[in-house]
Amino acid sequence: MRGDVMARKPASDRVLDAAVSAFSELGFHGTSTREIASRAGMSPAAVYTHFSSKEELLFEIARRGNERFLALLHRAAAQGVTPPERLASIVYEFALFHARGHIGARVVNYELPALTTEHAQEIKALRRQMVDVVRSVIEAGLQTGEFDTPDPSMTCVAVMTMGQDVARWYREDGRWAPEEIAAHYRGLVLRMLDAKL
Amino acid sequence: MRGDVMARKPASDRVLDAAVSAFSELGFHGTSTREIASRAGMSPAAVYTHFSSKEELLFEIARRGNERFLALLHRAAAQGVTPPERLASIVYEFALFHARGHIGARVVNYELPALTTEHAQEIKALRRQMVDVVRSVIEAGLQTGEFDTPDPSMTCVAVMTMGQDVARWYREDGRWAPEEIAAHYRGLVLRMLDAKL
Repeated sequence: MRGDVMARKPASDRVLDAAVSAFSELGFHGTSTREIASRAGMSPAAVYTHFSSKEELLFEIARRGNERFLALLHRAAAQGVTPPERLASIVYEFALFHARGHIGARVVNYELPALTTEHAQEIKALRRQMVDVVRSVIEAGLQTGEFDTPDPSMTCVAVMTMGQDVARWYREDGRWAPEEIAAHYRGLVLRMLDAKL
Repeated sequence: MRGDVMARKPASDRVLDAAVSAFSELGFHGTSTREIASRAGMSPAAVYTHFSSKEELLFEIARRGNERFLALLHRAAAQGVTPPERLASIVYEFALFHARGHIGARVVNYELPALTTEHAQEIKALRRQMVDVVRSVIEAGLQTGEFDTPDPSMTCVAVMTMGQDVARWYREDGRWAPEEIAAHYRGLVLRMLDAKL
């Protein structure tokens, strides 16, 4: 069954899926190209026809992953009208995604030190855009008086940190469903900003 | 200068210091025993007289690190009288430690998947004790009516997560001093629990 599903995907996507699963289990440095090839059901030589190196694979995973995060934040922010509604939606969707997609999110968030300087710069630029989405909503709420915080930038860091860290501690056999975590975190963040709802 | 300081320490501590710096820069899997030996100023063979494997080194770092975290939480909790005072102290000291000791804390918090199952169990037991300290203060505050939260366990996870994640994003050349982060996080957490001060 799983083999069938894998086979329908383009070969380069199969390599990426295999690399995500290997990196999340074994870490970037603990994963060989042979291991990735074996999980993708192809030869190491075939892997190299799609990606020139293991680092390039990690970069592609990080680029796609962070682009998805950024799109998700934009979509979530657009779901509300007032700043508290927009931030509520952002926190809910961000936490939900980090719980449901915890395997990929762990790689995207925690294996970045293994990137080359140039690739790391590109990913950092994406992540700065993500922070900007959240901070602009917080600042809008400060302007309207619906939020209160002595340091919007540091509060923004805390908000993103909470969501991202869900990918590290979330367990599929744990006590909380992704939706419960998302709803609880939404409540915590609105209180952190003393939101007037 | 640094060599002098290193030389005064017992050899096994020098190996541990060298391993922390190597693991935090290169990751556990990216670090060779030769690299650790070179940073400790000794031969690989000399490293093996102190630790039988790289994993045992990581375990010793994790055990010492988490024991320090646990002692810090107990000390911090004892610094206040009311639950809000005790939690304020916990959050401040925990965040401060994760900023100041970010290099070691990163290894202690993020390299744990590389431990053997048995060693991981021992570390998890220590971490459960850490969670218990924080949760018992939150529950005491719920009893007295000084805190309010719909799910004390999940709030406890969020509180610890925020502090731990400081070690991941904190930069010595960044815009905030450890004390500023600690003070801001203390305020955020007291709001998360709607603390009556």
